[in-house]
Amino acid sequence: MAIDWEARFSSYGKHATASEIRELLKVLDRPGIISFAGGIPDPALFPTALIAEAHRHVFEDGARSGAALQYSVSEGFPPLRQWLRDYMRAKGVNCGIDNILITTGSQQGIYLTGRLILNSGDRVLTARPTYLGVLQAFGGNSPRYGTLDALTDGEACDAKLAYAMPDFANPTGESISLSERKALIAGAHAKDVIILEDAAYCDLRYSGEPRPSLLALDLESVGSIEESRVIYTGTFSKTIVPGLRVGWVVAAKAVIKKLVLLKQASDLHTSTLTQMALTEVVSRLPQSHIAMLCENYGARRDAMLDALKRHMPPGVSWTKPEGGMFIWVNLPAGIDGAQLLAEAIQVGVAFVPGGAFFPDHRQHNTLRLNFSLCDPETIRTGIERLGKLISRS
Amino acid sequence: MAIDWEARFSSYGKHATASEIRELLKVLDRPGIISFAGGIPDPALFPTALIAEAHRHVFEDGARSGAALQYSVSEGFPPLRQWLRDYMRAKGVNCGIDNILITTGSQQGIYLTGRLILNSGDRVLTARPTYLGVLQAFGGNSPRYGTLDALTDGEACDAKLAYAMPDFANPTGESISLSERKALIAGAHAKDVIILEDAAYCDLRYSGEPRPSLLALDLESVGSIEESRVIYTGTFSKTIVPGLRVGWVVAAKAVIKKLVLLKQASDLHTSTLTQMALTEVVSRLPQSHIAMLCENYGARRDAMLDALKRHMPPGVSWTKPEGGMFIWVNLPAGIDGAQLLAEAIQVGVAFVPGGAFFPDHRQHNTLRLNFSLCDPETIRTGIERLGKLISRS
Repeated sequence: MAIDWEARFSSYGKHATASEIRELLKVLDRPGIISFAGGIPDPALFPTALIAEAHRHVFEDGARSGAALQYSVSEGFPPLRQWLRDYMRAKGVNCGIDNILITTGSQQGIYLTGRLILNSGDRVLTARPTYLGVLQAFGGNSPRYGTLDALTDGEACDAKLAYAMPDFANPTGESISLSERKALIAGAHAKDVIILEDAAYCDLRYSGEPRPSLLALDLESVGSIEESRVIYTGTFSKTIVPGLRVGWVVAAKAVIKKLVLLKQASDLHTSTLTQMALTEVVSRLPQSHIAMLCENYGARRDAMLDALKRHMPPGVSWTKPEGGMFIWVNLPAGIDGAQLLAEAIQVGVAFVPGGAFFPDHRQHNTLRLNFSLCDPETIRTGIERLGKLISRS
Repeated sequence: MAIDWEARFSSYGKHATASEIRELLKVLDRPGIISFAGGIPDPALFPTALIAEAHRHVFEDGARSGAALQYSVSEGFPPLRQWLRDYMRAKGVNCGIDNILITTGSQQGIYLTGRLILNSGDRVLTARPTYLGVLQAFGGNSPRYGTLDALTDGEACDAKLAYAMPDFANPTGESISLSERKALIAGAHAKDVIILEDAAYCDLRYSGEPRPSLLALDLESVGSIEESRVIYTGTFSKTIVPGLRVGWVVAAKAVIKKLVLLKQASDLHTSTLTQMALTEVVSRLPQSHIAMLCENYGARRDAMLDALKRHMPPGVSWTKPEGGMFIWVNLPAGIDGAQLLAEAIQVGVAFVPGGAFFPDHRQHNTLRLNFSLCDPETIRTGIERLGKLISRS
């Protein structure tokens, strides 16, 4: 007799459902399709030789390799946390290594922060649309959602946590202006809301001037990271490689201490070998690596913006990101992104329908286009096909 | 003004407290102390050369290294799941790769199973004492605890999940007999309880005959893994290395599908590079590797059992494990393991006081001794010192 598993799952287990996007990406990954669907960096631009060498060096040294393959502390490999302390200091965040936790990708930082802060039914503020992974990460805590505007409007606000991706957000590519950042921080103080800042794309800027992180701005106001209400997550996935699954959290020690315990309960620690090798990679990686990424991805962004201007019919609008990996397209009302995708696949182009990026009140006449994976010529071909299709809709 | 973080933490966040043992292990890790405290394999016995070579091979092939460093599917690397399918079949578990999820250590498998099954207040059955990591992993679900006896006694039972480590359990080293295994399975059916089987140590047997896993026994009774109520977790931490953080879950597809979603929400996937390298390691590892581990650890077990017999005063008893890494010691009533540790450190010996391994009703006159890290001579010296100390208590 088959077991009725649904009846045995927890409320969280029952409600966890497959992400439309991730299911979609599996079927789109086939030859002949120009895919703007993924959100992934170009493997041709990975610092593979340096990563291979760093692993070789760890194995060459008996004492290091023994430690690399052994259990280690949940907090993370101290030299990697030291490197990150210096990296954060260069970004205006004065912190110590006890303010830093290494995570299995920044997804884990977001997930654990949700577990640390949210009880069932607590309100979380996000952009609309927002990063799909945060909706998945917080799903187990059954939050209610609101928008980031709630921090800055004149209304009362019952939110406990606000999630923001200030630079080149996934999925829109848009950034928060300096004055808006300051307003968000002021609002979080006035309304007593914790901020979870996701800095995943912050180093991939192709034009315009860098802006301080929400954490750096909060430190200007409160003076010390121990007084800050910002929990910051970073990742090596966009600037080094995603496959090694290493990210980090920066926050007050009171927060990091608890996150260490939650991480220990969930996976003990992140691979020691990976952390050791990555420490060598980031220490030896030339400044020119990020510049090279920005040059390549910037040219792809330009190619896509140019092709959109050339091929999209009137009534279609899109964002003009200064960095990151995505452009967000608004279609005329009545065109459904998911329906359009079905037709687009017939002409050999793929993207992600925008609806999935909304916690609620979905706008279905939207698309997310990724420009980091295809070369400029392919981007032009794909956008031309897509433009023709939309013109006919 | 400092933020009152405690007031902002979730109930789970508030209740998460540092593990006594893990805090203890940090201070015990100093030169000159003979430590029976950790629960870690001997790095001198790691197949380091093979692991180094496997990483080198991945990097030598451009297409493989690109994939190794890129995002990949949450389910895990298919060739590693294929290898595990064959490994499980050799243990009497007929399953397909869709019944297998790769996890970031088996700790993650336990954690995610807790999230999948347990609502706050649900009852979980464990051995007493039990693996500390399971108490941490389930902590976020605020379960009530009961003992495994509840599956087989004549009473009614409101438990949802039973956690069992049938072979050489941490912390006692004891195994569940074949008839007891059958009784547990029958009880789980009769009382409609899901079983989480932790097979962490199952391949480290030094004497006696191998016994079928609870999953294999359940399959004999229900016929197909799709009908089984056992969720099985395994790990490469004890037989290969722990530092790479790779484990797996085997269960009905209905369970694995949900666990994949929960894993995706928590860390997207386990390092692709690590999974690829490990696939080569396990494929090429000679049978003699496990035999070599068993020979070494078996000799250390024998040395410790012999020394206990020689040096412990009357009134002290201990388990006689057929495998694994631990011996459990019962002291005369009135001797407190934690107090004894303070004195033992003075004479250069460390262990873990047993109290921490009980979800409730702690027995403080107990110790956990690890025998996998020290050589036989050191074990003899350490147990002699410990015996003298207890004789004086």
